Amino acid sequence: MAGPEIEQVIQLLAKLPGLGPRSARRAALDLLQKRESRLVPLIAALTRAAEHITLCSVCGNLDSRDPCAICAEPARDRQTLCVVEEVADLWALERSGAYRGLYHVLGGVLSALDGVGPDDLAIASLIKRVGEGSPVGEVILALGTTVDGQTTAHYLADRLAGTGVVLSRLAQGVPVGGELDYLDEGTLSAALKARRLV
Amino acid sequence: MAGPEIEQVIQLLAKLPGLGPRSARRAALDLLQKRESRLVPLIAALTRAAEHITLCSVCGNLDSRDPCAICAEPARDRQTLCVVEEVADLWALERSGAYRGLYHVLGGVLSALDGVGPDDLAIASLIKRVGEGSPVGEVILALGTTVDGQTTAHYLADRLAGTGVVLSRLAQGVPVGGELDYLDEGTLSAALKARRLV
Repeated sequence: MAGPEIEQVIQLLAKLPGLGPRSARRAALDLLQKRESRLVPLIAALTRAAEHITLCSVCGNLDSRDPCAICAEPARDRQTLCVVEEVADLWALERSGAYRGLYHVLGGVLSALDGVGPDDLAIASLIKRVGEGSPVGEVILALGTTVDGQTTAHYLADRLAGTGVVLSRLAQGVPVGGELDYLDEGTLSAALKARRLV
Repeated sequence: MAGPEIEQVIQLLAKLPGLGPRSARRAALDLLQKRESRLVPLIAALTRAAEHITLCSVCGNLDSRDPCAICAEPARDRQTLCVVEEVADLWALERSGAYRGLYHVLGGVLSALDGVGPDDLAIASLIKRVGEGSPVGEVILALGTTVDGQTTAHYLADRLAGTGVVLSRLAQGVPVGGELDYLDEGTLSAALKARRLV
């Protein structure tokens, strides 16, 4: 009833993660009612992104350059490679400002249930990156602490065994600012096991 | 760190109602990773909407036609005019399928706090639509049950007094499917006062 042009915008917005049919309708209305200040700039920005953003052929990051800004940055530590599931994880680590090495985006995790095998992920290119003649000395497996994430980490550890690189993973424990009361038992028990002397 | 093209998309998406910085980032990533199936169609749909959708000069609805499809539909009851705050309210009433009259979108409500006066809303055009020679016999004030909504309804009732039109408002009561236990006292007391014999 809102006309086919509006309905199509609503349907496409509703497919975005975090938006449902109701919020997509509100978003579409907002865009149409603020055409010059919102809709036109958004169209321009999306068009620019669609034209310029590509996958980095080295690490799988999204950027307007290939290799991406991170891979191309001379100041980065080329001996450390951080393996993440998705580009979003790479961005999260960059926001932390705590990491100065390079990345490798797998594009997901192994999953028997979803039919995701090693060939569906950027695993062959990872093996190649840490292979003979590579400067990489340490690979950080920064995968999710889900069953599939941990299965993938084990698989990668097997595949990388014998290459001579040091393998590591992120520490598990109490989140900074977290209250013990609200944490699940698994996290608490991991934090307890990994306790450090003060 | 995600490059200026992506950052701009994230910033514009984050301004949409219902999206914050975090969900905007996820939405931007999703769009960029599904370029052909999501991003390109969304750009096309938004461009089409930006080019074709206008405000209906009669009722204030958003449509690709002016007058809009509702105002132009011959089967609509032209004696009944439903006054709503926003286009979203018009769409909600249309979804109900329970109304076959015409609409008038005010574009907001009177608000001393936000500095919204009668001249900021489509009130003059409403008075004109129900004025002399108009077929309108009933005006339904379907405004929100907020203080500002009710203030606006009272103001409109004053302005429309003497035009001879019947004024009405939506019934207040228990929502269909609603549990009494979860309702606020105001709604319960309104539902009790307006109780009907079965």
